[in-house]
Amino acid sequence: MKVALKHWRVSQKQLIQYDVIRSSDVFDENNDLLISSEKNGGNRRFVVVDQRVYDIFSDKIHKYFRQKGIIARIVPISTGEANKSISNYTSLLEELDSFSINRRNEPIICIGGGVLTDLVGFVASTYRRGIPRINVPTTIMGYVDAAIGIKTGINFNESKNRVGTFSCPQKVLLDKTFFSTLERRHILNGVGEIVKLAIIKDSNLFTALEKYGKACISSKFQDDKGDLILERAIDSIIQELEPNLFEDNLSRSADFGHTFSTALEMQKGSDLLHGEAVVIDCVFSSMIAFKRGLLSKNQLDGIVNLVLELDVLVDCPWIEDTLLWDALMERTYHRNGLQRLPLPCAIGEHIFVNDVEFSEVHIACEFFKKWMCEKWKKLSILI
Amino acid sequence: MKVALKHWRVSQKQLIQYDVIRSSDVFDENNDLLISSEKNGGNRRFVVVDQRVYDIFSDKIHKYFRQKGIIARIVPISTGEANKSISNYTSLLEELDSFSINRRNEPIICIGGGVLTDLVGFVASTYRRGIPRINVPTTIMGYVDAAIGIKTGINFNESKNRVGTFSCPQKVLLDKTFFSTLERRHILNGVGEIVKLAIIKDSNLFTALEKYGKACISSKFQDDKGDLILERAIDSIIQELEPNLFEDNLSRSADFGHTFSTALEMQKGSDLLHGEAVVIDCVFSSMIAFKRGLLSKNQLDGIVNLVLELDVLVDCPWIEDTLLWDALMERTYHRNGLQRLPLPCAIGEHIFVNDVEFSEVHIACEFFKKWMCEKWKKLSILI
Repeated sequence: MKVALKHWRVSQKQLIQYDVIRSSDVFDENNDLLISSEKNGGNRRFVVVDQRVYDIFSDKIHKYFRQKGIIARIVPISTGEANKSISNYTSLLEELDSFSINRRNEPIICIGGGVLTDLVGFVASTYRRGIPRINVPTTIMGYVDAAIGIKTGINFNESKNRVGTFSCPQKVLLDKTFFSTLERRHILNGVGEIVKLAIIKDSNLFTALEKYGKACISSKFQDDKGDLILERAIDSIIQELEPNLFEDNLSRSADFGHTFSTALEMQKGSDLLHGEAVVIDCVFSSMIAFKRGLLSKNQLDGIVNLVLELDVLVDCPWIEDTLLWDALMERTYHRNGLQRLPLPCAIGEHIFVNDVEFSEVHIACEFFKKWMCEKWKKLSILI
Repeated sequence: MKVALKHWRVSQKQLIQYDVIRSSDVFDENNDLLISSEKNGGNRRFVVVDQRVYDIFSDKIHKYFRQKGIIARIVPISTGEANKSISNYTSLLEELDSFSINRRNEPIICIGGGVLTDLVGFVASTYRRGIPRINVPTTIMGYVDAAIGIKTGINFNESKNRVGTFSCPQKVLLDKTFFSTLERRHILNGVGEIVKLAIIKDSNLFTALEKYGKACISSKFQDDKGDLILERAIDSIIQELEPNLFEDNLSRSADFGHTFSTALEMQKGSDLLHGEAVVIDCVFSSMIAFKRGLLSKNQLDGIVNLVLELDVLVDCPWIEDTLLWDALMERTYHRNGLQRLPLPCAIGEHIFVNDVEFSEVHIACEFFKKWMCEKWKKLSILI
């Protein structure tokens, strides 16, 4: 029985809209994308920059804002997963609060990788109940994933992104010239997310990676083929994001590679990068798919050959079936009681399953470990 | 010049929808509004309760959840403006994280006044990027204002609501029986917000307050006239909120009484309640309106007589023109560079002005202080 004496319903449709723009050198004095705001007016900017990026580009950055007549407070921040913390959140809030900006038309500018855009996104989305921000990803991981969506967050109580918001950036500015300063490992880290998209939802992207992936990695994506792959990846991720921005639908193909990996990267002592953990998960999930008969031996071989060819699969000696199972259970809980595990059923196609059992995780894990001990070389023999 | 090489636009309309329901005793075993969720399923609830309310209703609250078969973690919290702090925010997050709930269909329940619904709203809207919550306001202030909107927040760096989100509750349950336990001062505090609505946008509500306000205050709104006034106030506030939930339009009639008051209540040593500061602001703003010729002497008299009759105007001996001017400047900044000061131009009608000068604030302040020294009694003579 309910006891309602009077009932009001508050209802409104809110438009969420933002632009993702690929540009060349964003600090070029002829490029004003970084400071032109939807609502022009202010001449102050709070700019948070990854310390590593700042060390390389500080002169260019200062010069850019000076030339544009912008009073900029430039704040370099060290990144790395440990810095997505509540203490960094509050100290950034304090710094921001001490530099007064117009809350509607002087967007925060965030220049960095996924850790930084997540952290600064959380700051921007909660300071004065939300001020605009512009994301400028400087890593491939940020470029094809973190900076493009509307998820912000920090880690809390040893859980990844336990606290955060859904809040869209005003604009995302893509400039791949930053990649030329990345170490190879960080290039490969981002390629991991692209491989994920290719396997689970985009066979054309998969083919492009087979053809050009290795060369792109060598050139750090500075060649034309790099544009082709990056644009294709962004088409793919926006296609996935746009109809489900707030994740009302918890069955998300972008969650491929993001089930078992959460435990791998949060494991104490692990130094796996996010994309490295994602690739391990992609391969492991593909093995489950193969054992279920969803993928043929050829298809599994295709996946495995691609990750080996691109050199994105790394060792993970401490992988264990119980750890993977716990991760699946935790994600099941996070996905509101159903596993909703995306598994490839062909290259670029997927289904969601809810009935993976421990025995499957155990068998796939044994298989994975054996293969790892054989230095990834003899998958066909093992099968 | 802009340098865009490729452009994507992400666009989606998001439906914001929630129910405001007036009910009788929400802890009655026959009333399941408190635990029925839009998406039924879970049997766990994290329940935050104002310590004062808990001291009175703890038996009823525990019994209610027990009878409904709900595993409830009940967390009493002391309120008061000082508790809307970042440290309370993080400790509530920790407590919540230690009590696992299903993030989609086991809403947080918040039972308390505006301070608590603001604080818990911020926790709920950021834990796991947002989990549902049900607001149960226990003060008149919460009932007709804080609990009904979508603003959450905490104070930060000595600024009110400097950090927070726009995030709608899943449901707001109104139960006026809580008011019978409120001290008279807290009844009057809430009446202050109702008076504000009446002056600025609802002459019928103004007339109802003139007729029944005093009796309602005596009965602590437990009589039928109490329902009439409360429902009218809620109609009025929802009418104001719904088309402008995210405050895209910064000219808000609900900001009447909320320009000069912010400085008054945040002033060190001030023990003004929010509604008390709002009433002072309403009267002061009405005096500016009178001096500008927007209000007639009779209309100003009507406003002043109502606040005196209802006994909602309190002394503020340290009021100063410079303090009020600084508050107006700060709000101007907050309102993106324009004063957007709502001033009544008749009972229940308003305009927004952007050109108030210091001299006007000075004259109105001198007038207000003189009148206060005369114990509010001789307004007609002073004019």
